[in-house]
Amino acid sequence: MAEQQGELVPGPDEKKRKLCQSGPEAADSPGSERSDFNLESFRLEKILRESARDKLVFVHGKVGQNNREARDAVIILEKTPFSEETLPHLLNKDADLRLQFRNDIYSTHHLHPLPAFNEIKTTVIYPATEKHIKKYLKQEMYLINETAEDYKTITGPYIESQSFSIQWVYNILEKKAEADHIIYENPDPQDGFLLIPDLKWNQKQVDDLYLIAICQRRGLKSLRDLTGEHLSMLQNILQEGQVAISKRYNIPGSQLRIYFHYQPSYYHLHIHFTAVSYDAPGTMVERAHLLSSVIENLQTDPEYYQKRTLTFALKADDPLLQRFKEAGRM
Amino acid sequence: MAEQQGELVPGPDEKKRKLCQSGPEAADSPGSERSDFNLESFRLEKILRESARDKLVFVHGKVGQNNREARDAVIILEKTPFSEETLPHLLNKDADLRLQFRNDIYSTHHLHPLPAFNEIKTTVIYPATEKHIKKYLKQEMYLINETAEDYKTITGPYIESQSFSIQWVYNILEKKAEADHIIYENPDPQDGFLLIPDLKWNQKQVDDLYLIAICQRRGLKSLRDLTGEHLSMLQNILQEGQVAISKRYNIPGSQLRIYFHYQPSYYHLHIHFTAVSYDAPGTMVERAHLLSSVIENLQTDPEYYQKRTLTFALKADDPLLQRFKEAGRM
Repeated sequence: MAEQQGELVPGPDEKKRKLCQSGPEAADSPGSERSDFNLESFRLEKILRESARDKLVFVHGKVGQNNREARDAVIILEKTPFSEETLPHLLNKDADLRLQFRNDIYSTHHLHPLPAFNEIKTTVIYPATEKHIKKYLKQEMYLINETAEDYKTITGPYIESQSFSIQWVYNILEKKAEADHIIYENPDPQDGFLLIPDLKWNQKQVDDLYLIAICQRRGLKSLRDLTGEHLSMLQNILQEGQVAISKRYNIPGSQLRIYFHYQPSYYHLHIHFTAVSYDAPGTMVERAHLLSSVIENLQTDPEYYQKRTLTFALKADDPLLQRFKEAGRM
Repeated sequence: MAEQQGELVPGPDEKKRKLCQSGPEAADSPGSERSDFNLESFRLEKILRESARDKLVFVHGKVGQNNREARDAVIILEKTPFSEETLPHLLNKDADLRLQFRNDIYSTHHLHPLPAFNEIKTTVIYPATEKHIKKYLKQEMYLINETAEDYKTITGPYIESQSFSIQWVYNILEKKAEADHIIYENPDPQDGFLLIPDLKWNQKQVDDLYLIAICQRRGLKSLRDLTGEHLSMLQNILQEGQVAISKRYNIPGSQLRIYFHYQPSYYHLHIHFTAVSYDAPGTMVERAHLLSSVIENLQTDPEYYQKRTLTFALKADDPLLQRFKEAGRM
């Protein structure tokens, strides 16, 4: 398990897992049948969200001949990465290359390859509910500067009121689930942790290496709960985590980005390990906190995280944002 | 000017500027002529670098019939973002949609649209030099934990030895260049600053808003030089910068990410303003430092940045990394 952040993959975990497996290898088997999803009666209603950087778009549409019977669909289109196999087909004499602009040795062109070599990954949710549509709708983001007082009066009570289930984390710690995924374990109930691959990582290449350390100790919700008392646990995670990854994947500690999220996506303390050269989601300054800085902060002031303002971004429809607004803090 | 980070656009600034202008609008004019660059005799030598997330690849190849006369070329391929105009052509009955995987209401498919609606942006550098090829070659990244002592003995002397020219920054401050770009100015020589759009931003939409505040005061190279003495300047930049952007672009301060880079790309103190919802390059935790946190750090300890360890990433061939290695700090 570990982290539920994937944007593209909808639904509960089991669905997530299964869809995740439908990678290139799965494409060969059922891949060549004509799709049963009918674009013939598809009408585009609205672009829900798009990412120019990721070449990704989320579209809401209706399927059905007449308006009364038409049902909602969400379609997610994503251009596929280049691959070593298709490149020679793109860069050959059959390619239609048209000049856009030339300046000295630099020129830009439009290339139109044969359809077979320029695929778009398409995910369809059909019939889609109102909830699906809302989930993918572009939302404004707001930065919150959460003071220590805000945490006590707004964020803390909000987390309590939600009573998010973290049973799945306990299942991992108790080896009732994913026991075969564990890369490293320090079993100490106070200062120990488990290291497991994050679900987003397919473990096929180390370019996008992504692991999670889950602390054994219960009751630590996030960065905000850390004090000088937890320094030995944090140092264990930093040092033993690096050694374990170096042994298993041959990636030295100097090529690892090791950090907390604040806010985290679940409230049992955990730490992210990603390859420095991998531009992983959730590494931006308004969410990520380097473990080495956290340790230095706690060494300087054991109550640093009970005193400081912490900044994070929330989507417009996040109930926590609503609480900050109600408290007049936005 | 401001920031020289664009990956795609090669060469010196003038070339950068000109190539930058060849956007979609430019495509209409010379766009339909068959390219003069000859793919017929192109041979792929090596994939220099690729980004699966950005759907981008950098390729080194040779052009020419025989090996003795063949000359080097670098080709950069990038899939284009989806656009409102082409979407209806992708999602219609003529599209070739093939089922990959189905699970309940979720299914994934391969879509092969007509070539005209699925373009690849192609940048050619030809003939290319060894330097071009090296520039685009994938490089390992390493995290440096720079202590205060390291800054004094390694980084500081390195910056001095390089004597990077920042004349272009002074030209902006003295209104000898880009005077018409200035969005806001506080002329105070100690605590003032200029606010200008970053070159990476085309200013056509606020989704990817990107501005730079350049401080009037000279001699401040980076975050490392800041002390309690600079708090009034930093507060001016934070407050007046937000007000100026709100007035000009109607984006409130709560939707702005305001941060330093460390290491910066040039050593005259400047601050980045980007839209929170924009996943701008250089916002990751190992490079970006929120201005609000910097202010709080300096309020807690006026010499915070002369004492602390700062972490940043360097490419394998960065001369500064070499200096850390020579000093036995890697």
